[in-house]
Amino acid sequence: MRIDYPPAIQRLVAQLKALPGLGPRSAERLMLWLLQMRDERITALSNTLLDARERIVACADCGFFIESDSTCQLCHDPRRQQRQLCVVEQAADVLRMERSGAFQGLYHVLGGRLSPLDNVTPEDLRMEALVNRVRDLHTEEVILALGSDVEGEATASYIADLLRPAGIAITRLAQGMPAGGGLDHVDELTLYQALHGRRKMG
Amino acid sequence: MRIDYPPAIQRLVAQLKALPGLGPRSAERLMLWLLQMRDERITALSNTLLDARERIVACADCGFFIESDSTCQLCHDPRRQQRQLCVVEQAADVLRMERSGAFQGLYHVLGGRLSPLDNVTPEDLRMEALVNRVRDLHTEEVILALGSDVEGEATASYIADLLRPAGIAITRLAQGMPAGGGLDHVDELTLYQALHGRRKMG
Repeated sequence: MRIDYPPAIQRLVAQLKALPGLGPRSAERLMLWLLQMRDERITALSNTLLDARERIVACADCGFFIESDSTCQLCHDPRRQQRQLCVVEQAADVLRMERSGAFQGLYHVLGGRLSPLDNVTPEDLRMEALVNRVRDLHTEEVILALGSDVEGEATASYIADLLRPAGIAITRLAQGMPAGGGLDHVDELTLYQALHGRRKMG
Repeated sequence: MRIDYPPAIQRLVAQLKALPGLGPRSAERLMLWLLQMRDERITALSNTLLDARERIVACADCGFFIESDSTCQLCHDPRRQQRQLCVVEQAADVLRMERSGAFQGLYHVLGGRLSPLDNVTPEDLRMEALVNRVRDLHTEEVILALGSDVEGEATASYIADLLRPAGIAITRLAQGMPAGGGLDHVDELTLYQALHGRRKMG
């Protein structure tokens, strides 16, 4: 006889496993905690989630998260470079860029990337808004900070084509070795790209 | 100006980070999903959790999870070795042992391990029930399948002392190299113990 958790637990683990970033082991560990957690903490977590879902909207301009009764700190900061627009896939990517400290311009969140397999077409992304913003902001450079996988590449090409008539600079993030990593930590494609994009020293 | 998520999101991420096994990056990824998930899926997940919390109880004998209206498959399987009792810390450890296929006896879930720092004393664990079961089941061997960290060791010693009067065999899991791992994958203490517990070949 194959022993397993009772059905009620198996159902819970299955649903937790479907959450992003939770493998079988993490889902099991989380299940154990959730079962043993005090009711108050469960209620608190679920209230915080409902509260966030109610309050949070996307900024109509850049697409980053804002609370519905506030204005976007990013779009309304006059100290930011107004002529550079960094295009990212998701709202979370904005914070990743911000934490790197490398960019001082404005952002544009696409809300995903082109993916024929998942039925994501240009109409599902904020492409038209991008064209309008580039025009209204008199953008001089659009930086494509998209993933370096197939969908990311396809999305970058699509945008490059889309913005070509505007006659502005369109750039993308460099590809190469991650900081602090040795050759043994990167895959062959990364290494290929790192070699291909090599730069002169000194 | 340091950009961060709006407060409602920060609160959610903070609570998700407090869940076991979720680091900052996983919590952020989970937050993004939870915010974008359809209401039906959120409701389904929360109902599954409530359902599991309502139905699931610990078996009064072994301490493994059972649904409250059913009997324990493990305790009531006559084909299992009735004279061997495997002591584990948590209910989830029972399944880990079962998946290994190495054990055919009965289990006893302690419900934790001794930890003075966390105020976990013998009274908080199912120690008395263990003594009673060893007597009632005429147990011949108690196998301590506890963690090999300080608290696990302390708990094992405590149980060994507790059961000494019963005059039965008390064993513990071997310590050594994990299967499939090279020397470069284990820490020094594991290596020390693996060397110390080395066995003759052939």
